[in-house]
Amino acid sequence: MESEAASPIVVLVRPQLGRNIGTTARAMLNFGVTRLRLVAPRDGWPNPDAGPAASGADEVLAGAEVFPTVDAAVADCTHVYATTVRKRGLIKRVVTPEEAARETHMRGGRTAILFGAEATGLDNDEVGRAQEILTVPVNPDFSSLNLAQAVILCAYEWSRHADLPRAEPLEPPAPQTEVDGLVGQLDEALETAGYYRVESRAPAARRTLRSLLTRPGYTAQEVRTLRGIISSLTR
Amino acid sequence: MESEAASPIVVLVRPQLGRNIGTTARAMLNFGVTRLRLVAPRDGWPNPDAGPAASGADEVLAGAEVFPTVDAAVADCTHVYATTVRKRGLIKRVVTPEEAARETHMRGGRTAILFGAEATGLDNDEVGRAQEILTVPVNPDFSSLNLAQAVILCAYEWSRHADLPRAEPLEPPAPQTEVDGLVGQLDEALETAGYYRVESRAPAARRTLRSLLTRPGYTAQEVRTLRGIISSLTR
Repeated sequence: MESEAASPIVVLVRPQLGRNIGTTARAMLNFGVTRLRLVAPRDGWPNPDAGPAASGADEVLAGAEVFPTVDAAVADCTHVYATTVRKRGLIKRVVTPEEAARETHMRGGRTAILFGAEATGLDNDEVGRAQEILTVPVNPDFSSLNLAQAVILCAYEWSRHADLPRAEPLEPPAPQTEVDGLVGQLDEALETAGYYRVESRAPAARRTLRSLLTRPGYTAQEVRTLRGIISSLTR
Repeated sequence: MESEAASPIVVLVRPQLGRNIGTTARAMLNFGVTRLRLVAPRDGWPNPDAGPAASGADEVLAGAEVFPTVDAAVADCTHVYATTVRKRGLIKRVVTPEEAARETHMRGGRTAILFGAEATGLDNDEVGRAQEILTVPVNPDFSSLNLAQAVILCAYEWSRHADLPRAEPLEPPAPQTEVDGLVGQLDEALETAGYYRVESRAPAARRTLRSLLTRPGYTAQEVRTLRGIISSLTR
């Protein structure tokens, strides 16, 4: 619930294509960001092109709220970021998506992120409504983020800093004693096969061998497989 | 130059739509990742739909290399990540895009990231070629990343970590083709020894074996040692 409260509101300002509204919804939901607001969408709302492009993120579209102006869209927000690609002659702090995400979580309250129209971005008045500017640090020689890509990077960062459940732990490595058994079996097999023919080098060779089999952190099952392989080769 | 050397190679495996190859190139170049390889693109290469979707990232498309198999595409790579959405029954370390980016920079060498076909992803054999699995931590209730979105998150993370100081290089892992040689030698030895006695289980056993030898990231010297061991046991 806490992270729901802190989840930023994505505000698309004068979006042109319904398709881009759909791909934005999809990008958001991938990272658990669900609140979408539209300011004066060019082709009205709802837009029949949005649904197919959302690839199942219908709940985001269904919950989208429409406002006539940026002011109205952010009236209930306690912090507003304006996304821009290029630097503006505005005296505002510029943050990365990561900094914005971190601070959104820490600050709490209701945060909005403004994204401008596809072709033109936000105008200076709209940027002026924001406390801070959010700029994705793209390649200076090629900055061509589309709307959904800019949104997904912000949503990804927000999610990355929420305490989402992490992946299941891997199966743990086998206890050292089982690795020892494997090393011992291989050592014996190699001894029999005459692998250690130069007596003086045998200790170094044994160390190498142990290291080769210890470093990977093989699981108990993997150790058994390797022992089976050695048995098979020496039968 | 240093970061150019460490920049990962994006490998699209059996990509279906030219449009998606184009949006992938665009996503890459936004974050300065330029090396693209295509494995058996469904509609051949070049593909007339790629260029318009790349929105100007033509240099990435022009430099794309085509390979018939994943093996060939990663033969000169020292570390391979396989991207997957769902968990697999494979014992491999699973990393996030951030961890992969950080480690790619620190490890040096030539890193490849495999992305599967749009509809089906990578198959188990293809995942078996990789040292580690890269999974974007998406919303468990809605995981619907398209190809370019998965790529942009990896490229973004790589770029975000590009200014980190490099660690002293460890001895790099052997190129994949040398690991292939090791796997091939062991496979032959086991075949001769009758290890694959239950025919129906042979493919799974082979995958396990490949995974056991790929995951540790053995150096060229270690691969030679292991080959010597097998030769010794089968002489």
